[in-house]
Amino acid sequence: MEKTMEKIVNLCKNRGFVYPGSEIYNGFANTWDFGPVGIELKNNIKRTWWKRFVQESPNSYGIDAAILMNPKVWEASGHVQGFSDPKMDCKSCKQRFRADNLVEEHSKGAVSAEGMTNEQLEAYINEHKVKCPHCGNFNWSSIRQFKLMFETSRGTIEGEKDTVYLRPETAQGEYVNFLNVQRTTRAKLPFAIAQIGKAFRNEVTPGNFLFRTVEFEQMEYQTFCKDETSLQTYETIKQRALQFVEDVGLKAENLRFHDHEKLAFYAKAACDIQYKFPIGWEELNGIHHRSTWDLSRHQEFSGKPMQYLDPVTNEKFIPTIVEYSIGADRLTLAILCEAYDEETLEGGDTRIVMHFLPAVAPYKVAILPLQKNLSEKAKEVYSMLSKYFMCDYDESGSIGKRYRREDEIGTPFCVTIDFDTLNDNTVTIRERDSMKQIRLSISELINYISKQIEF
Amino acid sequence: MEKTMEKIVNLCKNRGFVYPGSEIYNGFANTWDFGPVGIELKNNIKRTWWKRFVQESPNSYGIDAAILMNPKVWEASGHVQGFSDPKMDCKSCKQRFRADNLVEEHSKGAVSAEGMTNEQLEAYINEHKVKCPHCGNFNWSSIRQFKLMFETSRGTIEGEKDTVYLRPETAQGEYVNFLNVQRTTRAKLPFAIAQIGKAFRNEVTPGNFLFRTVEFEQMEYQTFCKDETSLQTYETIKQRALQFVEDVGLKAENLRFHDHEKLAFYAKAACDIQYKFPIGWEELNGIHHRSTWDLSRHQEFSGKPMQYLDPVTNEKFIPTIVEYSIGADRLTLAILCEAYDEETLEGGDTRIVMHFLPAVAPYKVAILPLQKNLSEKAKEVYSMLSKYFMCDYDESGSIGKRYRREDEIGTPFCVTIDFDTLNDNTVTIRERDSMKQIRLSISELINYISKQIEF
Repeated sequence: MEKTMEKIVNLCKNRGFVYPGSEIYNGFANTWDFGPVGIELKNNIKRTWWKRFVQESPNSYGIDAAILMNPKVWEASGHVQGFSDPKMDCKSCKQRFRADNLVEEHSKGAVSAEGMTNEQLEAYINEHKVKCPHCGNFNWSSIRQFKLMFETSRGTIEGEKDTVYLRPETAQGEYVNFLNVQRTTRAKLPFAIAQIGKAFRNEVTPGNFLFRTVEFEQMEYQTFCKDETSLQTYETIKQRALQFVEDVGLKAENLRFHDHEKLAFYAKAACDIQYKFPIGWEELNGIHHRSTWDLSRHQEFSGKPMQYLDPVTNEKFIPTIVEYSIGADRLTLAILCEAYDEETLEGGDTRIVMHFLPAVAPYKVAILPLQKNLSEKAKEVYSMLSKYFMCDYDESGSIGKRYRREDEIGTPFCVTIDFDTLNDNTVTIRERDSMKQIRLSISELINYISKQIEF
Repeated sequence: MEKTMEKIVNLCKNRGFVYPGSEIYNGFANTWDFGPVGIELKNNIKRTWWKRFVQESPNSYGIDAAILMNPKVWEASGHVQGFSDPKMDCKSCKQRFRADNLVEEHSKGAVSAEGMTNEQLEAYINEHKVKCPHCGNFNWSSIRQFKLMFETSRGTIEGEKDTVYLRPETAQGEYVNFLNVQRTTRAKLPFAIAQIGKAFRNEVTPGNFLFRTVEFEQMEYQTFCKDETSLQTYETIKQRALQFVEDVGLKAENLRFHDHEKLAFYAKAACDIQYKFPIGWEELNGIHHRSTWDLSRHQEFSGKPMQYLDPVTNEKFIPTIVEYSIGADRLTLAILCEAYDEETLEGGDTRIVMHFLPAVAPYKVAILPLQKNLSEKAKEVYSMLSKYFMCDYDESGSIGKRYRREDEIGTPFCVTIDFDTLNDNTVTIRERDSMKQIRLSISELINYISKQIEF
C-alpha cells in the first residue's frame, strides 16, 4: 500500500477532516478549514499535549497571549529587521518566487541554498538559466528581500502610520510575560511557560497540505533555567518531546532527531524531531537552546529588567531559555499520515481505516441501530453516551457500509443496537482495528470506553 | 460589598488571570494576555460550551475555519462596503474619535446616536461645541468613515495590491462551509455548525477590560433550517442560550433578554442576552434570525449554488439561518464578575473568594503539605491527582494564607497532607465556599472530586 499525500488530502476532504479554505471562492493562499472530524482530532491532539506539558508537569504554567502585540516586540526579537526571504519577480508573468527555492528545485536538491548570499543565488540562476516555474520564461528581476510578517495598521492617530504585525511566532508571548507569570505563580527556576496559539507567515510558496501554511498553530513549552543546568534541561526536553509524539501514536521508526548544523551565535544546541511524511523526512518540531538572548533583547528594548531574583543566593540574573515548539497542524498531519491504512479483507474488498490512538480519535463511539425501528432505543444510548464522549450516530445504509464509514474517520468503537437489546439491554461493541465484536451490557459501556481512551 | 471593574481587573493582574498585552512595552491597544489561571478558566468555559452545543447536541458539527479568508467573502458579506464607524480627528492633538460616541458621551446618554446621519452628528457636535476628550480643544475635522476591518496584504504578485482582511467575525466560516459540512456528514435539515475562533475589529475606542477588545474570540452556533420552522428554532435557541449561561454559573437575576428594536431588512427576529456587568446591563450574546440572506449573497458572489436538496420532497432551496453567537472573552469576564466576592470572616478578616462553578474553575484541587517535611507524600498525591485534574501545589506560608490564595483563584478543593496522612493515608479536603473540611482516604479522592466537577 502506497501512502501518498494525495490519498490523505482526498480522504480529508471527503470525510470532513479538512476542507480548502474559502473553497467556494476557489480557495485562498493554502489556507485550510478543519471540518467536523478534523477539529475534534486537532482539539484532542492539543488537549493531550496540554495534559502532558501543563497539567501533569510540575512548575509548568499555561498562557494565551494576544496575536497582536506592540510592534516593539518584533524590533526586539529581530523580526522587523531580519525576517524575510529573497524573492525574484518573473517580469513576464509577474509571479513572485523565492530565489533559494528556485536554486534548490533546479538542482533537484543537489545544491543547498542555505547560507548562499543573494549575489550567489542570482549568479546560479543566471548561469543555469533557471526558468520561471509558472510561465517558462527566463526574465527575472533582481532579488529583493520580502518580509515574512503580515503587516496591518491600527490607524487611531490621524496621519500617523502605525504598523502592527500579525505575530510570526508565539514564543514572544511567553518571553514578554516571563516576569508576570513568575510573579503571580511565585514559581522558582527551573519553570516553564506553555502556550498554544496561532501565528502567521506571509510565505510566498506554502504547500504540502497542512505542512506549510500561511496561518498555523504552534504548541510551545519554554523552560526558564539557570545557564549551568540548561544543557541538561535541553536533553530532558528532547526525550520528553520524543516520548510525547510516540505516545500520541507516531511510530518510533518514523521519528528521528536531526541536530542543526549551524547554530545561532548565542545558542549552545538545537535540534529537530523529524517525521517520515509521505513527502520524506521533514521537521515536526524543534528544540532550541536560546541562552539569555531573548530576555536580554527585551530588557534592552523595553528598558524593564527581565531578571530573576534567586531566593537562596539573592543573585539577580537573566535566565537561559530552552524552547520546545511543535506545530499543531503539522502534528495533526503526521497523525493523519501515520493512521492511514488500506487493508484487504477476506473476500478481496479493501477497507480504508484510520488507526488513530483512541484518545485522539474524533469520535470515540458510533451508535448504529441495526434497523430503523430500533432508532428510539439507539437514541437513548446516544443520549447517555454523549454526556461523556463525542459520539456519532448513523442509521442509514447496511451495517457493513456504516462500519466502513466509521473506519474511515477512525472511530475506535461501534455500538450496534439490535433486537436483543430491547430484551436484555445488551449491545454489540466492535473494535476498529481488530474488527472483533463482543457483547456488553449498556450499563458497562461508559466504563469500558473510558478505560480504552485514557491518555 | 461593591463589585467594581477595578477590583476585578486588579485581582486578574495579581493572581494570573489576565495581564495587559505587551505589558513591558506599556501595553498595546487594549489587548490582554491570559495568564496561567485565566487560560484554564477560559479553556474550561470553551469546553463546557462545546460539550453542550456540539458533543451533546444531535445534528451539530464543529468546524475551525482559517482567520484569513478570500477577500471576496467580505464583499459578499457586505463588510468591505459597509463595516465602518464615523470618525473625527482632533486637529489639535491628532487623536481620532468616534463621532457617535462623542455625541452620546456629551449628552450623557440622553441622545441616542444610533441612526443619526453623519450630517446630524456633525451638527450636534458643532452646535454643542463638544470638546476633544483628550486635549480639550474644539478643533475637529469633518467626519470620515473608518473601516473596522484590519487590512493586510499577501503581496505574492509583483506590483499588485492584494488586500486581505483579518476576519471581523467568525460566522462567514460556517456559512461558506455549509455545503462541505452537509456533504461530508450527510446531515439533514435542521442541523447546526459550531465554531470557536478569533476575530479582529479595528475599534478606535475599545475598553472596559475584556468587554470590548480589538482581538476577541467568538463561540457560534448557526442552525440551518427551513424557513417555516425558523421562528420556532429561534425560540428554542434563545432558551438553550439562556440555560447555558445559567449552567456555567451566571445567576438568573443578572440575566435578561433584550429584543432588538430595529431589525435588518431580511430578519424576522433578533435579541441579545444581557448580563448585569459592574458597568451596567450589557450584551453578552446575540441570537439573530438571518433568513436566507448570507447564503444567498455567497451564492451570488461565488457563483456556486448554496442550496439544500430535500431528500423527501426533492426540492432545492437556500436554508434559513438562526445565529447564536457569544463572546468567549466577554463570557469569561461575566463569570469573573459573578464569581467575585468579599466575605467577612469570624474575627473580622476579609477573604476574597471566586465562587466559580467547579467545572470551570482553573484548578480543581490544591495539594498543601501542612509542613515542608511532608512534601514527599504531598508530591505523590499531586502526581496521582494531576493525571486527572489541573492541580495546584503550594508548600509556602501558613495553611491559612494558602487557603486564602486558593480562594482568590477559585480552587474548589484543598487537600491538606498532615502527619496522620503518613500513618493512615487519609487527608483533609476543604471545600471553598463553605470552608467545611472532611476527612477522606486518598484512594477516594479521584471519585470524590470527579463527581463535584461534572458538567
